[in-house]
Amino acid sequence: MKINGVHYRTIWLADDATLQIIDQTRLPHRFETVKLVDSDEVACAIVTMQVRGAPLIGVTAAYGVALGMGEDASDAGLDAVVAKLGATRPTAVNLRWALAEMERLLRPLAESDRARAAFAKAAALCNEDVEINRRIGESGLPLIRQHAERKAGTPVNILTHCNAGWLATVDWGTALSPIYQAHDEGLPIHVWVDETRPRNQGAALTAYELGAHGVPHTIIADNAGGHLMQHGEVDLCIVGTDRVAANGDVANKIGTYLKALAAEDNDVPFYVAVPYSTIDWTLPEGRAIPIEERGADEVTRMTGRTEAGEVVTVDIAAPGSPAANPAFDVTPARLVTGFISERGVCPATPEGLTTLYPERANR
Amino acid sequence: MKINGVHYRTIWLADDATLQIIDQTRLPHRFETVKLVDSDEVACAIVTMQVRGAPLIGVTAAYGVALGMGEDASDAGLDAVVAKLGATRPTAVNLRWALAEMERLLRPLAESDRARAAFAKAAALCNEDVEINRRIGESGLPLIRQHAERKAGTPVNILTHCNAGWLATVDWGTALSPIYQAHDEGLPIHVWVDETRPRNQGAALTAYELGAHGVPHTIIADNAGGHLMQHGEVDLCIVGTDRVAANGDVANKIGTYLKALAAEDNDVPFYVAVPYSTIDWTLPEGRAIPIEERGADEVTRMTGRTEAGEVVTVDIAAPGSPAANPAFDVTPARLVTGFISERGVCPATPEGLTTLYPERANR
Repeated sequence: MKINGVHYRTIWLADDATLQIIDQTRLPHRFETVKLVDSDEVACAIVTMQVRGAPLIGVTAAYGVALGMGEDASDAGLDAVVAKLGATRPTAVNLRWALAEMERLLRPLAESDRARAAFAKAAALCNEDVEINRRIGESGLPLIRQHAERKAGTPVNILTHCNAGWLATVDWGTALSPIYQAHDEGLPIHVWVDETRPRNQGAALTAYELGAHGVPHTIIADNAGGHLMQHGEVDLCIVGTDRVAANGDVANKIGTYLKALAAEDNDVPFYVAVPYSTIDWTLPEGRAIPIEERGADEVTRMTGRTEAGEVVTVDIAAPGSPAANPAFDVTPARLVTGFISERGVCPATPEGLTTLYPERANR
Repeated sequence: MKINGVHYRTIWLADDATLQIIDQTRLPHRFETVKLVDSDEVACAIVTMQVRGAPLIGVTAAYGVALGMGEDASDAGLDAVVAKLGATRPTAVNLRWALAEMERLLRPLAESDRARAAFAKAAALCNEDVEINRRIGESGLPLIRQHAERKAGTPVNILTHCNAGWLATVDWGTALSPIYQAHDEGLPIHVWVDETRPRNQGAALTAYELGAHGVPHTIIADNAGGHLMQHGEVDLCIVGTDRVAANGDVANKIGTYLKALAAEDNDVPFYVAVPYSTIDWTLPEGRAIPIEERGADEVTRMTGRTEAGEVVTVDIAAPGSPAANPAFDVTPARLVTGFISERGVCPATPEGLTTLYPERANR
């Protein structure tokens, strides 16, 4: 994606071989890149959500392992960096998937080969992420095209929750990839962007990247989606996910479940964009997915720009009132119309998933 | 309710006979009272939500008519002030109800008698509101007591959306009245307070007044309620309403519908507290209720306290992104377990309503 005419990925090695990210905690107020010099800084960037989004968390952790191999390439060093990065965030399975990929590659190698191999593998995972997301867009594009044909020139209204766009991945995004491809193809589309409290990834990140790409969109409070669906203002929903269980249950940003309920109540198709690395074949159902509880501050404080352009954080809640902050919820598979993966579209059922991934069927 | 040990209503005549309100746009950051000197200021206070909440809007408009009679007590003056106040906000029917009450009283009177009679009537409506809300609490208390008995000492968890408390009425509140009475009776309760974006009436007002009264509570993002219900963390929901149609459909703050869907999906009872003045017997169903669309600023800007204690408003969304702001939604009667009114509890059906209000049955 381009920011002010310059093409960026969300994570890259600079010319001096240092690891660079976009600091997503500063968006949409400031566009700033940050250098991560060691595995501790990588872990910190994941915890503080300077990088976030399941696919991006995965590849960032892969680079964290690579930096860790430069620090201590022993087996104990590998164990330690994998444990450290694995403890950063509990819900997105891509983190565990990426760490397992790195470990499987590195464990058999001589210590002296590990750092170089790890950087190469992290780069390969980044490139794979871009290609997979491009293909998710290709898989989802016909769904939007169908609505565009039916609507004969009036915009297709797509609701999305949180940010499952370019900024949540290395490039393209998952849920937003079909949307970008539909827009690039000239289909008339309009995106309802759920604000996505408490961290406002919708209003801050999704709106930012849709705006940067010129995709028509409107920010709404998370409360508004059901009302819009009741009034025929939403043609389909597409969201991302942090972990899909083997039965098709979907963990995603808190509030996704409420939108899926409203979609079902109003016969609005509800699709989940999912790369293969987000499917947790080891979990039979969604209730086993660990749900991260984050700090109350995220609910009671808000960051924004003053009229003078200063970025400040203010307390918004009644003084002294406690807050709770579960960061994800689980949408039962029965509420999901289908999965959009790099291999195509399938029903949100165990059979649907194994149709797309037959290599998993006989395990 | 008491603020810092002093008993307040939300609207009152001061010793010098001037009309006083609490400026609710300043809460929870500042507790400030404001004098409204004429009917224009009353209209402005309603539009800008210095006063809000369906019952409080109603009685405030009644005082607006009284002030209007002091300005021009002619029939034309009465027409004008009723039209002006009636145009302030479209959704809450209490506004229309209160204006109709005032008009019915004043129209037959001599011009010279109108102002005095209007002030007396506005005061009577205020007193009636307090008494009705107290009775709503009595009606709802047994529902909470049932859960308390079942839970044998562990707190009853009640979820509420927006503010239907003391601040939304003259005193007591509607949805919060049973909660206050349960707390005062010593029942162990805990309230999940939906933040209620975009204007944060939950985090700002409900949390404020529950805190002032010592009721245990926790603020949550609007997105979180479904997840909590999935995990058995909500025993019942009680919300207020801005208008109930004759079939039992409920207009309330945007997002109420999503919580009602989640409550149904998780077998959580979903009650709506409703004084008789909020029932619109003229509307056969909820889809005819006009839904107010408010300014995009309410979605893209947020007011809070800096660490220095200054109250500032900041831009929180991606620069240049548009926002939409429907302020209410309609929850179909099928999702409502029951109404809690000053006359008792009834199913959310036409028959349920006419059981409580038999005088309406034969119209």
